[in-house]
Amino acid sequence: MTIGVVGGGQLGRMIALAAAPLGIRCRFLEPGAGPPVAGLGEHIAAPYDEKDALDRFAEGLALVTYEFENVPVASAERLAARLAVYPPPRALQTAQDRLLEKDLARRLGIPTPPHRAVDDRVGLDAALAEIGLPAVLKTRRLGYDGKGQAVLRAPGDVEAAWAAIGGVPLILEGFVGFERELSVLSARGRGGETAFYPLVENRHREGILRVSRAPAPGVTPALQAEAEAYARAVMTELDYVGVVALELFEAGGRLLFNEMAPRVHNSGHWTIEGAETSQFENHVRAVAGLPLGTTAMRGQAAMANLIGTVPDPARVLAIPGAHLHLYGKAPRPGRKLGHVTVRGEDAAGVQGRLDQVLRLL
Amino acid sequence: MTIGVVGGGQLGRMIALAAAPLGIRCRFLEPGAGPPVAGLGEHIAAPYDEKDALDRFAEGLALVTYEFENVPVASAERLAARLAVYPPPRALQTAQDRLLEKDLARRLGIPTPPHRAVDDRVGLDAALAEIGLPAVLKTRRLGYDGKGQAVLRAPGDVEAAWAAIGGVPLILEGFVGFERELSVLSARGRGGETAFYPLVENRHREGILRVSRAPAPGVTPALQAEAEAYARAVMTELDYVGVVALELFEAGGRLLFNEMAPRVHNSGHWTIEGAETSQFENHVRAVAGLPLGTTAMRGQAAMANLIGTVPDPARVLAIPGAHLHLYGKAPRPGRKLGHVTVRGEDAAGVQGRLDQVLRLL
Repeated sequence: MTIGVVGGGQLGRMIALAAAPLGIRCRFLEPGAGPPVAGLGEHIAAPYDEKDALDRFAEGLALVTYEFENVPVASAERLAARLAVYPPPRALQTAQDRLLEKDLARRLGIPTPPHRAVDDRVGLDAALAEIGLPAVLKTRRLGYDGKGQAVLRAPGDVEAAWAAIGGVPLILEGFVGFERELSVLSARGRGGETAFYPLVENRHREGILRVSRAPAPGVTPALQAEAEAYARAVMTELDYVGVVALELFEAGGRLLFNEMAPRVHNSGHWTIEGAETSQFENHVRAVAGLPLGTTAMRGQAAMANLIGTVPDPARVLAIPGAHLHLYGKAPRPGRKLGHVTVRGEDAAGVQGRLDQVLRLL
Repeated sequence: MTIGVVGGGQLGRMIALAAAPLGIRCRFLEPGAGPPVAGLGEHIAAPYDEKDALDRFAEGLALVTYEFENVPVASAERLAARLAVYPPPRALQTAQDRLLEKDLARRLGIPTPPHRAVDDRVGLDAALAEIGLPAVLKTRRLGYDGKGQAVLRAPGDVEAAWAAIGGVPLILEGFVGFERELSVLSARGRGGETAFYPLVENRHREGILRVSRAPAPGVTPALQAEAEAYARAVMTELDYVGVVALELFEAGGRLLFNEMAPRVHNSGHWTIEGAETSQFENHVRAVAGLPLGTTAMRGQAAMANLIGTVPDPARVLAIPGAHLHLYGKAPRPGRKLGHVTVRGEDAAGVQGRLDQVLRLL
């Protein structure tokens, strides 16, 4: 079986590495030259919206999935007209727009920070009047890793924020005094069966994920159940197939929906070594119509991203229980070049190993 | 870094899948078309002894290793004249010849079954007079999966055995009444550091490995230490770099050396899920001059080979803790097409899952 993957970054790379043992090959549609998936499957180098390329890409595939959520919805729909596309294009469309995804969450009874759509400068003032300060102004579309966002702390911040990101559809969100950021990775199969990984604690810097800890320390069964209920509701509503990540805030012992990623997710990379079945394998199993694998953890795990530069691999690998993952990308400031997962039997041991990794960065 | 791998079967495939996360690419020299490594690295399709192909293969590589022990020694030496070749060609030469490897073991004080070289029909009678019956007559070279062997139980078996495999250099081995077959996978780095996996119990049928259990039940620390001492002695003597497998018999509470494989080995496939660092990753780490990873087990594991046919993947993957590995080979009787590893926290649970897998075969 050959499956098509739209996008050719590190997520596609790790999907291909998980698909191979199942006897499943990948074909990638990715405009960039020499992408992380190079050498791990057929690569069609063309823009995501080039119709001829989409048709060539689809030829002979069993199904199509994506590793990148900014695939044009029209492209996903063109593909869906001739073969199965998982997750469904509607999930893509929803996740591409901060307003649509928050409206979906609210419709499903999932708490979100207060938010208002902002279509123009006047609308921004109206939204500010309702939401108050502090607040975060965000582009509705194409934001990632902290890009397309501006924090408004005082009235004097408004003009600069508007100058920086105004002119496209925006959303104003109330600034939530959350204690920490969590995420839950979930999978849903073609027959509707679901599987959930333990809640993960995430630490960002400059808008980029730096460290994830699994399981998140101090999660009660009730909090895990709340996260799973939210993920299940989203997946059911979207008739979802594949792995989805929900990014959440923990505030006052409750969870708030921040955003969703209709794909495997950076905060789930630890599952390669730390769970019985990785998020990548479960995504492949789900879209291919195979049974989901157990999401039980193997011990405890933490992951650190390698941003901008890569430490000496020999020093990383000298740390017991450290697993290095490089993506084959040229170094550039702010670029995710790889990650390191540390695994161990207890949280203290994992923390010690993580500290050793972080000292190398 | 690109490393060269001579051979392109499932072992090469799993080496490539372990090398990719370390940012290491593989180039394969493999005469067959559409081999298991297809799509996982550059493939030079040429005979192992074609000088031009060897030179093209070597161009720009950081080093060469192999996944197949019957690489012509002259080819390994041609490669070693221009770049690092690990394990060293002498290890290849020794392991290719049942007489050389048993003589090496004996020289190192490692017990072996009694054996004699047999160069002709008269020599067979002389060896039989010394060793007695029952005995096993084997070709010195190119035997694998039980091929090139004949069991001699009674004097009447001798002529048929000679007719079947005589005419090439042979070895006659005393038939050892062993209790079980064990193996030990070991790794040695470029700086001489070593790492050992727990002893594995192996069950063969028709000369082909069917099931491995890790750790082998009932292994005492003394037996594990004995196995490690033998492996260390062999690796030191050969100035070995990479992973090596020693196949052993357990008889009367002691270990007897049966044979060695100078490469990753079928009885170590369980390490992908069952050990902190897989044999494949440790082989890559060793030859690339990176620190070896810990060989500690993650729970308990068992592996079943898929021989000749592949069961429905959905039925395999429905077994909790079952991990499917397909090699991309066309079905053929007696052919290794894949394997399934089951992992769990205790031996009873693993046995139950293994039984479920075996019922599908």
